[in-house]
Amino acid sequence: MTDSLLEGRTVAVLGGTGPQGRGLARRWATAGIPVVIGSRNAERAEAAAAELAEATGGQVSGSDNGGAAQQGDIVVVAVPWDGHKELLEQLAADLAGKVVVDCVNPLGFDKQGAYALPVEEGSALQQATAVLADSTVVGAFHNVSAVLLDDPEVDRVDTDVLVLGDVREATDLVQALADAIPGVRGVYGGRARNAHQVEAFTANLISVNRRYKAHSGLRVTDV
Amino acid sequence: MTDSLLEGRTVAVLGGTGPQGRGLARRWATAGIPVVIGSRNAERAEAAAAELAEATGGQVSGSDNGGAAQQGDIVVVAVPWDGHKELLEQLAADLAGKVVVDCVNPLGFDKQGAYALPVEEGSALQQATAVLADSTVVGAFHNVSAVLLDDPEVDRVDTDVLVLGDVREATDLVQALADAIPGVRGVYGGRARNAHQVEAFTANLISVNRRYKAHSGLRVTDV
Repeated sequence: MTDSLLEGRTVAVLGGTGPQGRGLARRWATAGIPVVIGSRNAERAEAAAAELAEATGGQVSGSDNGGAAQQGDIVVVAVPWDGHKELLEQLAADLAGKVVVDCVNPLGFDKQGAYALPVEEGSALQQATAVLADSTVVGAFHNVSAVLLDDPEVDRVDTDVLVLGDVREATDLVQALADAIPGVRGVYGGRARNAHQVEAFTANLISVNRRYKAHSGLRVTDV
Repeated sequence: MTDSLLEGRTVAVLGGTGPQGRGLARRWATAGIPVVIGSRNAERAEAAAAELAEATGGQVSGSDNGGAAQQGDIVVVAVPWDGHKELLEQLAADLAGKVVVDCVNPLGFDKQGAYALPVEEGSALQQATAVLADSTVVGAFHNVSAVLLDDPEVDRVDTDVLVLGDVREATDLVQALADAIPGVRGVYGGRARNAHQVEAFTANLISVNRRYKAHSGLRVTDV
């Protein structure tokens, strides 16, 4: 059962063939939300969409990222950090007037694990906000385990999703999108200027995963 | 009941008359750990110590920050960000050879709430590590509600404490120090280079507190 805020809305997932994007698409399709999977390669997107439609019984189609950006009412950006800015610049016109949900974590990796990369604009969310002047950009889904999301054997993903942004109507909508995933709760997590640490926090969860052999996530207490 | 790692160790809390420091001191004293409260003003420290000894039945004394640094086997730094570096520079010799636990969040505040301040060294923890070359510096207790810690009516503080650092023996010790507080669990959260986002995350929790009228904290899931 999805929130009425989501009624009649199609969710496009750019980078929807990667583990995070496909995992989110899987969950929303299962929840009855129409999903368009976007990818650089339209054929790969269509193949992933057919597989997810079959697995979930949901309404899933595939397209290149540009087509997905056009078809989505809400557009989720789950692409690698490398190329994030360029992709959004290309799609800015298609994304105008829409709510864009940035899930991207600017991280580097070396032998000691993951670490936060510096971002000129402050965070991936602020970079997206700067590039997409005509969209309403919200940050969310940074800290959710892609492994759990994309595992059809996992019924519930027990974690909170921090939703960041400066426009209340848009953060409420994205909280509903989080709440549509069984086990997940959308929690307002602050303004866009406080997105950097939420993105970077994924590096800490990767350290936790290594130490404890876990697929860790976050819960906010007393809320 | 405290972990054997903590046996025979005295914990000094610099900034122990502030809400965070006093809250931590209260919890450790209640747990039977000998505590020295440090403050810029020795008389204020002694008054706070007498009050806490009375309230908890624990072993609590007070001193200026220098005396506390000398007396503690583990020294917790819970001072304001403004003056953090200077204080540690002054106390570097007293802190040599000890485990120093930095709890400081470099935050600014304005009408829109809290936000992360830039730190030249990357984080308060990395600044402390740079200044205290002869100590083992660990980051912890950044995201725990001072209000809950310092409220004698609150029996349990249900939150995880992320413990950050590059020396396993020291992070294990500080996890035990977290575990000594009823409700709290110490969780290894990564290396010192990933401390910035944990410190800054307190700004997000302050946003959560405003929105939901809560005293929020974190739990790490699947651990």
